[in-house]
Amino acid sequence: MQIVKKMLAGDRLALARVISVLENRGDALEKLVKNLYPKTGNAFVLGITGPPGAGKSTVTDRLIARFRAAKLKTAVIAIDPSSPFSGGAILGDRIRMQSHTGDKGVFIRSLGTRGRHGGLSLSSREVVMALDAAGFDVIIVETAGVGQTELDILKLAHGVCVVLVPESGDGIQVMKAGLMEIADIFVVNKCDRPESDKLVRELTNMLHMFQKGTDWEIPVIKTQATQNQGIEELFQSVLSYQKHLKNTDKVDKKRLEFLREELIEIVRNAYGHKMNEALDTKKGQKALTDLFLKKKSPYEVARSLRLTGIK
Amino acid sequence: MQIVKKMLAGDRLALARVISVLENRGDALEKLVKNLYPKTGNAFVLGITGPPGAGKSTVTDRLIARFRAAKLKTAVIAIDPSSPFSGGAILGDRIRMQSHTGDKGVFIRSLGTRGRHGGLSLSSREVVMALDAAGFDVIIVETAGVGQTELDILKLAHGVCVVLVPESGDGIQVMKAGLMEIADIFVVNKCDRPESDKLVRELTNMLHMFQKGTDWEIPVIKTQATQNQGIEELFQSVLSYQKHLKNTDKVDKKRLEFLREELIEIVRNAYGHKMNEALDTKKGQKALTDLFLKKKSPYEVARSLRLTGIK
Repeated sequence: MQIVKKMLAGDRLALARVISVLENRGDALEKLVKNLYPKTGNAFVLGITGPPGAGKSTVTDRLIARFRAAKLKTAVIAIDPSSPFSGGAILGDRIRMQSHTGDKGVFIRSLGTRGRHGGLSLSSREVVMALDAAGFDVIIVETAGVGQTELDILKLAHGVCVVLVPESGDGIQVMKAGLMEIADIFVVNKCDRPESDKLVRELTNMLHMFQKGTDWEIPVIKTQATQNQGIEELFQSVLSYQKHLKNTDKVDKKRLEFLREELIEIVRNAYGHKMNEALDTKKGQKALTDLFLKKKSPYEVARSLRLTGIK
Repeated sequence: MQIVKKMLAGDRLALARVISVLENRGDALEKLVKNLYPKTGNAFVLGITGPPGAGKSTVTDRLIARFRAAKLKTAVIAIDPSSPFSGGAILGDRIRMQSHTGDKGVFIRSLGTRGRHGGLSLSSREVVMALDAAGFDVIIVETAGVGQTELDILKLAHGVCVVLVPESGDGIQVMKAGLMEIADIFVVNKCDRPESDKLVRELTNMLHMFQKGTDWEIPVIKTQATQNQGIEELFQSVLSYQKHLKNTDKVDKKRLEFLREELIEIVRNAYGHKMNEALDTKKGQKALTDLFLKKKSPYEVARSLRLTGIK
């Protein structure tokens, strides 16, 4: 495929087009994935998450600069909720990251939640695949870590950095939000604020109590991203974590897990899509009517619309 | 089924058991749904959502009391993220709602996100179905409206009440979070705080600009739930909205939409589950290895594992 060749040669416009096809689930999607997939496997995927207002974008912005100083090509996918009103993702604070405009080693893209039925998770995987194939060394996936889908998406990352501020609540709330179990690195941002030491202590204590039985000790790093404070330490932690993964067999294990999840997502989406189409046929409308009139149960109706194989 | 009979007769223990089967996707699930479904269609399902800290639980608590004063049997499903550490949903502020303990007209249950692959959305639908069949007049579904899954779940509600506080951000952030398009009623809680009038104004202005072209004018209600202030107005708004739905053909339209979504969810889950099982077979392991070694692309592998029909 011409577009893939161009993309692999470093053409940014071609990359943007490829991503659009992946995001919009276009017809060429499967062929694209087939062409991209063999080129993947070199990038380090870093998830950055945390509650709104924690300063994730600023941390990301500073990390990009540090990765670039180390000559690492860096891409960012920001997962934004989309609004039917605005007709797409509202970029919001993405704008701040435009300080890297003009640097061909940086690529930033927002992904909206356009697709229904959980398609976002699969699109995100495939966009990461495209960026990996395009030769980026680091791919940052930034989500607001406050919902199930957003946390699920982070399963595609090799490592996850959770950014918090004292205002985001105490340790208990961090646990409640499901952030404790996905974090490989904790960042307490805006560390000039009075309560931040307390949060650092709480996190450290909770980690001592609950740390997954692994050989990686989850660090709690204090940053003040707007002042570029603590970013070097965070950068070094990311490198350490990456080294840690390489030294164990975890990279392969994670890749196998990702691939398995991806296959399941493909099947879920394909059949959900098929069902959606089947319900628009005459037979489907009849089945839906039977369901509406309570002549049949949901599972009976679902089974009656025989879906065979993926298109 | 004996348990369904008991449940329909008002046995709360039987209801709790039925819900557990639905939540844990037990073997009896399909038969249960078949028995429950014909009894449904009477409850009004009210979604309550908003960012953490907005006081959703207190608003819910006060609304329950008001619904009870109107002799309406009221059930609450609270969607909580779950933690592998704690082994289930952390109930947190559910505890506050225990003021209704002893009232047989109130039933409160937390649903955790135990199932992987988006099963929560389907479980929630089926639990609502059970509560509907069990004769509750009002079913409140409370989620932290901050993630895609949590917003998707609210599609099962007839009406959605979005609870905000000035601290949850300005109008723009409300839009960004996707809350604007799901709200049928806005609540500005903790209205004693100085900034609340500003938020009310912003919301009112945005509603004037963006209101979906409908005949329902979305109200913005000020409450101070801890003081029971504004709850009567909220209650009356919910009744008005319910009346509005009944007077149009929207109830049937919504029910048809719900059923369609449910069928799609059933199929997505069934095939995702089948794929997961298929990957554990000898053939599946071989396919996964081929994928790992990049001999085949993800879509090729997904198609090669022929999944036929739902079990």
